[in-house]
Amino acid sequence: MSGVDQDKSKVKRPAKRRKLTLDDYEKGILERNVGILSRAITLVESNNPDHEAIAQQLLTRILPKTGNSIRVGITGVPGAGKSTLIEHLGSQLCKTGHRVAVLAVDPSSSVTGGSILGDKTRMETLVREKNAYIRPSPSAGSLGGVGRKSRETMLLCEAAGFDVILVETVGVGQNEITVRSMVDFFLLIMIAGAGDELQGMKKGVIEIADLLAVNKADGDNVNRAKLASAEYDRVLAFLQPATRGWKTHCTTCSAFATDTLDALWRKIEDFSTTTRESGAFDERRRHQSIEWMNAMIEEELLNRFHRDPKVQQLLPGIRAQVENQTLPAATAVKRIMESL
Amino acid sequence: MSGVDQDKSKVKRPAKRRKLTLDDYEKGILERNVGILSRAITLVESNNPDHEAIAQQLLTRILPKTGNSIRVGITGVPGAGKSTLIEHLGSQLCKTGHRVAVLAVDPSSSVTGGSILGDKTRMETLVREKNAYIRPSPSAGSLGGVGRKSRETMLLCEAAGFDVILVETVGVGQNEITVRSMVDFFLLIMIAGAGDELQGMKKGVIEIADLLAVNKADGDNVNRAKLASAEYDRVLAFLQPATRGWKTHCTTCSAFATDTLDALWRKIEDFSTTTRESGAFDERRRHQSIEWMNAMIEEELLNRFHRDPKVQQLLPGIRAQVENQTLPAATAVKRIMESL
Repeated sequence: MSGVDQDKSKVKRPAKRRKLTLDDYEKGILERNVGILSRAITLVESNNPDHEAIAQQLLTRILPKTGNSIRVGITGVPGAGKSTLIEHLGSQLCKTGHRVAVLAVDPSSSVTGGSILGDKTRMETLVREKNAYIRPSPSAGSLGGVGRKSRETMLLCEAAGFDVILVETVGVGQNEITVRSMVDFFLLIMIAGAGDELQGMKKGVIEIADLLAVNKADGDNVNRAKLASAEYDRVLAFLQPATRGWKTHCTTCSAFATDTLDALWRKIEDFSTTTRESGAFDERRRHQSIEWMNAMIEEELLNRFHRDPKVQQLLPGIRAQVENQTLPAATAVKRIMESL
Repeated sequence: MSGVDQDKSKVKRPAKRRKLTLDDYEKGILERNVGILSRAITLVESNNPDHEAIAQQLLTRILPKTGNSIRVGITGVPGAGKSTLIEHLGSQLCKTGHRVAVLAVDPSSSVTGGSILGDKTRMETLVREKNAYIRPSPSAGSLGGVGRKSRETMLLCEAAGFDVILVETVGVGQNEITVRSMVDFFLLIMIAGAGDELQGMKKGVIEIADLLAVNKADGDNVNRAKLASAEYDRVLAFLQPATRGWKTHCTTCSAFATDTLDALWRKIEDFSTTTRESGAFDERRRHQSIEWMNAMIEEELLNRFHRDPKVQQLLPGIRAQVENQTLPAATAVKRIMESL
């Protein structure tokens, strides 16, 4: 079994599926059994506490086998051609011996009906590659929740021998920051058109990118794409690069021009080599793990705070007073904290 | 008494200074007594719990008299000429009937020996204006602490009838975000020079600005400044504006060309009119109060967490395991939270 994970679609399943033990999951993943990988990801994505408990035990076991991949985040406004590019890049990487996992991060997917990777037919070619694995975005929830599930899914894929992880996200909202915080390299897909497209992008996205690529640089569009790319390079000169020791720049590419995809991948490999040598690569990964832990601690502390009955009783009134300028914010905070 | 606040310098004080009551503070501030304002700010800046208690009571009383000012944040790399510009702009505003308070936010000031507003002699002209009040950065502490003190200082100044609050900060670190979150309008001071200066700036600063101004546009430098300004305008076309309904753009100015200072101020007035009419002005202020309260709650929850003896005992070991990839982050968080 390979290709798009079928777990969540409406295909008929065998009436009985044997319950897997922790050993089964571990063995299956390490043996690169994609069916078992899919079921493990479903565990990770589940909000059921029992599933969560098994998932955490499984993650603890496979953790030493993770990390052997290059994690690439890919974003861009809708219509930039991300999915097509990923499909063609992914197929080409499979042909050169890589094993490619494509994940999506999109907390709104359940609302929009699956805006990315949702339409599984879109990656028809990649689905047929036996060395590719495509997993749509986990079902909605807070972005924190989706981010966590995606990180853990990434670890499972690495343990299952995928050496290239492509994480797709849409270029709106907070998603990019979440994806940036889980990947080594962040690619921003643009299209030519005088920069107007960028107006729709969340602030600061250019500044977290390691590479910009003006896509659809084919046919009549090659020159326009090259001009746009030069323009972006001018903008980038004013901004700090996202990664120590790496100069963020802009290039052009087309899903339908193999040489541009090769060139794109060489840039990513070049990034990997450069930053591994300088130590920036490992430093970022360590930092990401700790930051992730800290973010979860913060989230949990805030959750507990907001679940507290006294807080639920006091906070709305106090918040209104702060908003109406009848109570200084520091006094408000003191009053709430003393009630705990 | 006016000009630079002398409270913290080494001037000789009268041996006895009468202890002020809460009523004295309130009355003095509302009567625009700058000496009493200074002493109230010293209370606000104090870490002594008794002072803090009085300060909060005072703030509660004067809160209805606050808000009647335009709050302008001003940043730029060291050497951009911020202080000179503020001094000349401030003097000019005083001459046209405004009452101007100049505050500084710089958590590092005690370390660097007061990098901004520290050298009080620098604002010699403004110091002599009876409608100006200059207050250096509160003594160091966490940026959160400095930010809080500066916000409360701003409120006291407003209650004392200052209708223009200029908040200066240096263009490095997290300061700009803190200042942006307490002002209505954010001005980024640049200098001409092919954009290299920007490389030293923290990411995202351009994107939180409502106006960029290429400073030192005087003498031989006018054309270079205009070219740089046009270049920045090209960059701005790619970025989202910081304020709904207002187009961030770039201009030129010189502390020594009165007409440019007039033009600069007219832009700020224009911003004020436009955003007050659209509702964006009040919306931001309400949002800022609530966000400030939420940030303080979060900070306090994290402080309590890190002060917990069990956390202090457990966290270092668990953090090391997460960093070494022997413990999944979610498991780590669960283990810590269950110990509370």
